Amino acid sequence: MTKTLKGIAASDGIAVAPAYLLVEPDLSFSKDSVSDVDSEVARFKKAVEESTKELEQVRDKAKENLGEDEAQVFDAHLLFLSDPEFTGAIEQEIKGQKINAEAALDETAQKYITIFEGMTDNAYMQERAADVRDVSKRIMAHLLGVMLPDPATIDHEVVVIAHDLTPSDTAQLNKKYVKGFITDIGGRTAHSAIMARSLEIPAVVGTNTITEDVKAGQMVIADGLDGDAIIEPTEDQIKEYNEKGEAFAKQKAEWKKLKNEPSVTADGKHFTIAANIGTPNDMPGVKENGAEAIGLYRTEFLYMNSSDFPTEDEQFDAYKEVIEGMNGKQTIIRTMDIGGDKHLDYWELPDEMNPFLGVRAIRLSLQNKEIFRTQLRALLRASAYGPLGIMFPMIGTLGELRKAKKVLEEEKTSLQEAGVKIGDDLQVGMMIEVPAAAVLADQFAKEVDFFSIGTNDLIQYTMAADRGNDNISYLYQPYNPSVLRLIKHTIDGAHENGIWVGMCGEAAGDNVMFPILLSMGLDEYSMSATSILRIRSLMKKINTEDIKELANEACYVSETFADNEKLVKETLSKLGIEA
Amino acid sequence: MTKTLKGIAASDGIAVAPAYLLVEPDLSFSKDSVSDVDSEVARFKKAVEESTKELEQVRDKAKENLGEDEAQVFDAHLLFLSDPEFTGAIEQEIKGQKINAEAALDETAQKYITIFEGMTDNAYMQERAADVRDVSKRIMAHLLGVMLPDPATIDHEVVVIAHDLTPSDTAQLNKKYVKGFITDIGGRTAHSAIMARSLEIPAVVGTNTITEDVKAGQMVIADGLDGDAIIEPTEDQIKEYNEKGEAFAKQKAEWKKLKNEPSVTADGKHFTIAANIGTPNDMPGVKENGAEAIGLYRTEFLYMNSSDFPTEDEQFDAYKEVIEGMNGKQTIIRTMDIGGDKHLDYWELPDEMNPFLGVRAIRLSLQNKEIFRTQLRALLRASAYGPLGIMFPMIGTLGELRKAKKVLEEEKTSLQEAGVKIGDDLQVGMMIEVPAAAVLADQFAKEVDFFSIGTNDLIQYTMAADRGNDNISYLYQPYNPSVLRLIKHTIDGAHENGIWVGMCGEAAGDNVMFPILLSMGLDEYSMSATSILRIRSLMKKINTEDIKELANEACYVSETFADNEKLVKETLSKLGIEA
Repeated sequence: MTKTLKGIAASDGIAVAPAYLLVEPDLSFSKDSVSDVDSEVARFKKAVEESTKELEQVRDKAKENLGEDEAQVFDAHLLFLSDPEFTGAIEQEIKGQKINAEAALDETAQKYITIFEGMTDNAYMQERAADVRDVSKRIMAHLLGVMLPDPATIDHEVVVIAHDLTPSDTAQLNKKYVKGFITDIGGRTAHSAIMARSLEIPAVVGTNTITEDVKAGQMVIADGLDGDAIIEPTEDQIKEYNEKGEAFAKQKAEWKKLKNEPSVTADGKHFTIAANIGTPNDMPGVKENGAEAIGLYRTEFLYMNSSDFPTEDEQFDAYKEVIEGMNGKQTIIRTMDIGGDKHLDYWELPDEMNPFLGVRAIRLSLQNKEIFRTQLRALLRASAYGPLGIMFPMIGTLGELRKAKKVLEEEKTSLQEAGVKIGDDLQVGMMIEVPAAAVLADQFAKEVDFFSIGTNDLIQYTMAADRGNDNISYLYQPYNPSVLRLIKHTIDGAHENGIWVGMCGEAAGDNVMFPILLSMGLDEYSMSATSILRIRSLMKKINTEDIKELANEACYVSETFADNEKLVKETLSKLGIEA
Repeated sequence: MTKTLKGIAASDGIAVAPAYLLVEPDLSFSKDSVSDVDSEVARFKKAVEESTKELEQVRDKAKENLGEDEAQVFDAHLLFLSDPEFTGAIEQEIKGQKINAEAALDETAQKYITIFEGMTDNAYMQERAADVRDVSKRIMAHLLGVMLPDPATIDHEVVVIAHDLTPSDTAQLNKKYVKGFITDIGGRTAHSAIMARSLEIPAVVGTNTITEDVKAGQMVIADGLDGDAIIEPTEDQIKEYNEKGEAFAKQKAEWKKLKNEPSVTADGKHFTIAANIGTPNDMPGVKENGAEAIGLYRTEFLYMNSSDFPTEDEQFDAYKEVIEGMNGKQTIIRTMDIGGDKHLDYWELPDEMNPFLGVRAIRLSLQNKEIFRTQLRALLRASAYGPLGIMFPMIGTLGELRKAKKVLEEEKTSLQEAGVKIGDDLQVGMMIEVPAAAVLADQFAKEVDFFSIGTNDLIQYTMAADRGNDNISYLYQPYNPSVLRLIKHTIDGAHENGIWVGMCGEAAGDNVMFPILLSMGLDEYSMSATSILRIRSLMKKINTEDIKELANEACYVSETFADNEKLVKETLSKLGIEA
């Protein structure tokens, strides 16, 4: 029976393929006494044997599908399975305590994990804890007679179905075979959605029930353009969606032609379209999509993908790689935005009742100046390799900005005194994401070189609504006149004081938001690299004279989110522009 | 050795008296095996006996100091101590399990608590769980040989020292003997601070270490005017502070003369000074301090001090009592602000990552319309007894306001059709506390009769800083130009559209904030009743012509919180006004 679920369109495109369920099976067990310990040990040995055979297959498939590097982790797992110290300890536990293999496995594994994780001065051994976890999960699955999903073995076209996708799940997916994905939870700004856009795989998120509604192997359609997930489509639907997918692919091919074109409006005005990145690994996408700058390099991944604070040199290398890669185009690097929903294993911070209203980003940096200074030194050194903008996140008061700039000035002087070269094109800017900063934009503009508006946070604070809270998702309203007035006030405040202003939230790449921002005269639009050519194509069609009044209407005539959605669609439609 | 701690001045006045430590002793214990169970049972019996004797004294003292009603709770405790089923179960536990009395007491008490709390259809039995908790704590203290504090027995003048004060602690304090209090944590808007102001007891909060630094009986000074706590003051200091206290008392007596005067400026302009209340019990304070209206009646206490949702009639009675008590002066009643940091035992809401950015106040009401309708019916019925304003909290979008007004309209029509009288003077208004609402005040003003600015929340969202988070308390900045611009924009938007605007946050009663608000033309100032006469006195001294430019300077010339503090102090000082 055909069934359609309404989700959120998270990444453009259409995928039609059988479902692959990336769903954790239930691995719960009860601890039981056993009388016949020998047959229990035999049962355990058999599970180890089956796990070994399976892992060898997974490793070979992974090597074939993903390459040597990705397959190596499975060699580490096999090493554990063949380690008599590990398996022997579990057998001893079964015999000594007369308990079932599941309980013995779990207790022994926990012991190993505790020991490995306790070796805080040995990052290599700490990482082994994850191996023990994965290996025991596999043995447990065999003991319980359930199947673990092995995304690395996928060797035919599928649509991946999951409750949510973690970064490590995504790392195991082969883009050649994974045509799309559909998840239960998440929104357009969730990790899985951002990942889908960066991989250019169609995705539908937030369907609530897809993992319950679909069975492995059933045909599914993921419509990442309109947010629909269709289970067991009819022949007609398959045909229709294949055509829709082809039409989209054709449009995308058209966009690709704009790769080396400048970003100009129909009346020849130039505005910068830039890319948001998380690590130097995102640079290929930046180039393929013809970004004119990097408007936001989020440095927190440097801290998050590490088992200790990254050193000054490690940071310097990462920053330099990106700056050099941009060949003279500007790179804006934001100092760390840790805290809020982003935590580091190796840095224990106090629990907070409302972390989004807590000690995060620049607040944390100013309270931990040595960590901040290390990052600033790495940035200053990297500035010698190309035009760099250093950007402070979550600035709320002039006092905070002045403190941050003072620390930067101190580090600059100290490096210069040591003879280190600092770039001539270095700019210093700040995010506008705390409402107070937007309201005082005219004052802040006198003390920085540029602004970048962070819409995700600006919206959540202006509406007083956590953007991750599904029960009030209706309040996440980028087009609400209140948000637009703050954005307009920020742009006007910047221009009156002769500085440029960009936007690096998801909204900059949104088809409805873009014409409003253009009407306001926003200078730089920074977005997921995969949105750049779509927006460049839209920009080419718009004559700024035709939308002169749009900003004022959106801010002062419209009253609601819906009013503005309608306003932009009607305006473009009257001008004969398809968005 | 004299020691001075810097805290936060939370309630006016000076107290000089010996310290009374309202500090929970350490009641942790280890579970041990015992061989001689008979002597362990004897040890337990002795602890019960001592607890009984002590509780009888506490009860008698409480009767003497606080009255019959407050003493009754101790009778309930005594009943438990003499119940052989309860004490017998513990003795059985000691004998049967051969464990120490502490462990047996704890395990038995936990069982009782679980059973009582499980009786969800029997509010009386559920409340018994609290009795079991209190009684076992007392027996445990005797077993461990430590002392529990008994605030109800205080019979001489003291300054109470505590980590923090809960509402139930405060209920046990006799104002005759408790001259002041000093706490480790909290700010001006903490529960304990609000309570101190309503009891008119001097208080210093947020000293961090007072409970560690002071010993029971040591002389202390609580300077609630400047926020100092002095331990073991010198003779000179005692003299000096007694004089300071007397001067303050004299000033207060002067203020008292203004009780029946209207609130007018030096140039004869009238502005309303109103009171914030939580329950009808606050009415005596409202009258004693000559409030001209109730600017905020917080209805959430009706829900919080109850074991189930208050019925329509219970609510009607409470609202009517206040409205009638105001004798024709206006009462603004705010619909329930549940959620955020306010929870009900009988209403389980989903856990939220950031409750202050979650489903609270009007958001919760609109998602639970039957509960909302009950409150609105009670309010509409009460409107027949005097001029009432119904106010919606946390409105962020016009869509929310329109929905809330529609539900109100529906209930009004249905009551009128049933022949119920609705007051002619009924007004409908909204809080301005979500930044989006302040930014769009001109649009909102077309659809309500009045605004009331809630500064506590408006500040926390504008600055994106949890006002309860001590690590970023520096961001709670009422005088920050960003906050002031939003307030000014709200007032201007209201006046352009012919509606009145009040403020019901703590800021309305602040000596620095008040002249700025007056310069902006705010119509109504609602505050703790005990601040009314101080502000009325200040108002009398100010000629509005003299501070005409103050609002613009504070919003557009000043750049920081500190700039504005200085600006107001210098302005008043130039005018020869003491604040």
